[in-house]
Amino acid sequence: MRTRCGPPSRAGCLTCRDDRFRHWDNEWLIGEGRALDPARWFVIVPNMLGNGLSSSPSNTPAPDSGPSFPPIRVTDNVEAQHRLVTEVFGLERLALVLGWSMGAGQTYQWAVSHPEMVERMLPFCGSPRTAPHNRVFLDSLRAALTASAGFDGGRYGVPPDRGLRAFARIYAGWGFSQAFYWDECWRELGYTSLEDFVVGFWEGFFLDGRDPNNLLTMLDTWWHGDVGATPGFDSTEQALASIRARAIVMPAEKDLYFPPEDEAWAVSHMGGGAELRVIPGVWGHFAGGGAPGRAPDNADTTFIDAAAAELLAGPSGI
Amino acid sequence: MRTRCGPPSRAGCLTCRDDRFRHWDNEWLIGEGRALDPARWFVIVPNMLGNGLSSSPSNTPAPDSGPSFPPIRVTDNVEAQHRLVTEVFGLERLALVLGWSMGAGQTYQWAVSHPEMVERMLPFCGSPRTAPHNRVFLDSLRAALTASAGFDGGRYGVPPDRGLRAFARIYAGWGFSQAFYWDECWRELGYTSLEDFVVGFWEGFFLDGRDPNNLLTMLDTWWHGDVGATPGFDSTEQALASIRARAIVMPAEKDLYFPPEDEAWAVSHMGGGAELRVIPGVWGHFAGGGAPGRAPDNADTTFIDAAAAELLAGPSGI
Repeated sequence: MRTRCGPPSRAGCLTCRDDRFRHWDNEWLIGEGRALDPARWFVIVPNMLGNGLSSSPSNTPAPDSGPSFPPIRVTDNVEAQHRLVTEVFGLERLALVLGWSMGAGQTYQWAVSHPEMVERMLPFCGSPRTAPHNRVFLDSLRAALTASAGFDGGRYGVPPDRGLRAFARIYAGWGFSQAFYWDECWRELGYTSLEDFVVGFWEGFFLDGRDPNNLLTMLDTWWHGDVGATPGFDSTEQALASIRARAIVMPAEKDLYFPPEDEAWAVSHMGGGAELRVIPGVWGHFAGGGAPGRAPDNADTTFIDAAAAELLAGPSGI
Repeated sequence: MRTRCGPPSRAGCLTCRDDRFRHWDNEWLIGEGRALDPARWFVIVPNMLGNGLSSSPSNTPAPDSGPSFPPIRVTDNVEAQHRLVTEVFGLERLALVLGWSMGAGQTYQWAVSHPEMVERMLPFCGSPRTAPHNRVFLDSLRAALTASAGFDGGRYGVPPDRGLRAFARIYAGWGFSQAFYWDECWRELGYTSLEDFVVGFWEGFFLDGRDPNNLLTMLDTWWHGDVGATPGFDSTEQALASIRARAIVMPAEKDLYFPPEDEAWAVSHMGGGAELRVIPGVWGHFAGGGAPGRAPDNADTTFIDAAAAELLAGPSGI
């Protein structure tokens, strides 16, 4: 659940979990020679509620199991993480909070909910408020999965294989850019044809023990994300203005569901002297995903890592 | 099936049918004061094979009905249209061939298959070869519909309502741009909320008598679109180079499945002095769709109409 190395007296670095779902999927950004070097920083990687490792529809006993699992909001994740960080680890400050995708949403939420704790933040390929178009995309995933034969209102015995494949194929169109596919960048991940990539990378990901009710719980969390809903704030803009952390906000140039203009809007409202720094290139949402099979020193990872190093070397916002 | 007005001795204007599927959906581009003025031009609007009006899975008797309907290629549509135009109407030349989306694909195919007939062409929001990313999107539609409860391998008694809704919701994310949703441009179409729009516009469209097997037939036509597969050519580039028609190629700035860079590539290979002219704005694929409820003189329609008028006033490419 957590990578714990280095002197625990230092402020921690919190790497929020994202929609790749499990803590080990974040290891691409952590290690010797990286900004998040465990020899230097106390790195914490919590798992999201609903991801199958934290409390989830698939591992919660009746009567809250499966489709009866309660709805989870971004603030629920952040408050659980806050308790972990303060009550278990006894930390008062976080040197850096960062995360990809839904992890970026949690990063924004941390900076709004606990401004006195977050010194720096680096949300990448994610947003403080789920955009309307993003909700349309999420609704399409939900519609396909819940309409599939065998889903049975979430009370399936065996997860509906074809519904999960449809879910994967919808994601395939959104997760990487048009140019990624045109340029056949999937070859860099070791695939030999487009269909090989869609089956191996996408279907393989969603058929690898994912539980549909878990997916729908996280999807619902994502759908409702909005720092403006934090108690004490009347709007997203007002919540963003309250941020004190030093921030580098990093959307990816061709991210199809978190387009750079949305984060430009967010930065224009943020306190703390936030900087917008777009990750260039064609990898779309997965510019920030450390896609399995990609070379560890690829341009996108190097770009994000450099920003994290720069932030950590610079002053705190609080 | 056809709008027939004006002196039949004039060269016809062929408006290829697109993935809005039915001839009357093209009327927004035709009329007094428009480039396609029936008082001046003999305007022909054929229906695509598989659209439920032309031969389709839904209206073909056994043994070729439903899922047994044969696969249709873009060339099948163009050859049927060629027979209509030459054998029924006795035309030797077409002053202009134009079309949206799959209609744009047919426009390219006309210019490649019958270069001696096509004087001018105006493909908008469509491509000469279905891009890999576009195929990923199409595969997601197919996966969701065929996985849905009640689809039953295409041998459904009643079309699967929830599968069609999922199909509609996937389309909803692709048909308009992220910025369209952010700016709530659906208000221009008379809707009062995002959900109202998705249900009314998208689900309404796909539940309005669409037959799943018909949708899959057209989807398969689209998936395989490539002028490079025309007999006599070895590649898409070679086929494009053979085009003689005067062309204005009009992708939409924020079309998510026919992005402008793809058409820039096509134009770079086209013969005939083709011009790339991007439709500006946030309406995405529906910049070229004459979306129901939109003001007739909206900026996108005016922009396309002006290009058609300019082409028709200028010289023929043959």
